[in-house]
Amino acid sequence: MNNSARYTIWQGKSWRLCSAARVLADGTLVKTTYIDHPGAVVLVPWLDDSPEPTVLMLRQYRHALADFILELPAGTRGENEDWNACAQRELREETGQEAEQLIELGRCWPAPGVSNEIMAIYLACGLHTNPLPQDDDEEIEVVPYPFNDLVRMALDGSLLDAKSIVGILRTARYKRLL
Amino acid sequence: MNNSARYTIWQGKSWRLCSAARVLADGTLVKTTYIDHPGAVVLVPWLDDSPEPTVLMLRQYRHALADFILELPAGTRGENEDWNACAQRELREETGQEAEQLIELGRCWPAPGVSNEIMAIYLACGLHTNPLPQDDDEEIEVVPYPFNDLVRMALDGSLLDAKSIVGILRTARYKRLL
Repeated sequence: MNNSARYTIWQGKSWRLCSAARVLADGTLVKTTYIDHPGAVVLVPWLDDSPEPTVLMLRQYRHALADFILELPAGTRGENEDWNACAQRELREETGQEAEQLIELGRCWPAPGVSNEIMAIYLACGLHTNPLPQDDDEEIEVVPYPFNDLVRMALDGSLLDAKSIVGILRTARYKRLL
Repeated sequence: MNNSARYTIWQGKSWRLCSAARVLADGTLVKTTYIDHPGAVVLVPWLDDSPEPTVLMLRQYRHALADFILELPAGTRGENEDWNACAQRELREETGQEAEQLIELGRCWPAPGVSNEIMAIYLACGLHTNPLPQDDDEEIEVVPYPFNDLVRMALDGSLLDAKSIVGILRTARYKRLL
């Protein structure tokens, strides 16, 4: 069952395309191609001082979709980068904020049929300004967004980004708002 | 802003790896690589006759993770395949069931940072046996699962597959169980 071998088809800056073969118990050879990925973090930046629950969302240009989409801040982990350090770095790069507290809300696989990427989701509280330079190939606008609207949108289909849906709904449960 | 060009790095059976370049308003050239994907369906097969709410889940081997995972039935759309036809085909291939009714619960992007894949999520009701042959490269076991457990697992982090989390929680809202 575990007889397998793999090689690299294409190597990118942070992930690579792999081809793998696997021999099943009955001798069948199964070939597959997938992305080998170092993992990523997803942030739910919570504004403690807002009169109504509010999080920082992004409007970010996504090349694959050739459009701007509404999503939570997120980013790819550096090789062997500590998960918490990665979460603070991405938060500072994308929103200009640093968190006093990061609360992990579990992990998820965004696309296990094509990638081994795992995403760690963090609720980021106690925000204060401490920016890092943005990646120069990113087009990002930070948008404070009413949290209750995001919960509704995650459930009715008007929020489409899967990691954001997972992050918003796990936050709602953590905050006892769902 | 929309000045872009792309070419194929690798062509697979159902998706391809693309490279694209884009010239920003300030003249910066941005290069990116992503998966060009025909889309997919996700099914929430609901057992109407169970004493407690129950859906059909899969334990499926995922090459990228080198492990079996718990997930909803899902599959890639054929080129120009009708979405509803694709949903019935995948349901019959993976669970052996056909649905009298498919209720669309919106769409999601599983991984917009690396892929343009869009997933259409369907609640499948009125199930009756009408199987199609499984793909011979898939290793799948069908598992009837208590729905309320899945809702809890989606929110507490013990269900990890993102499309399944989205499908289960949108179903919970549709059924007024959340």
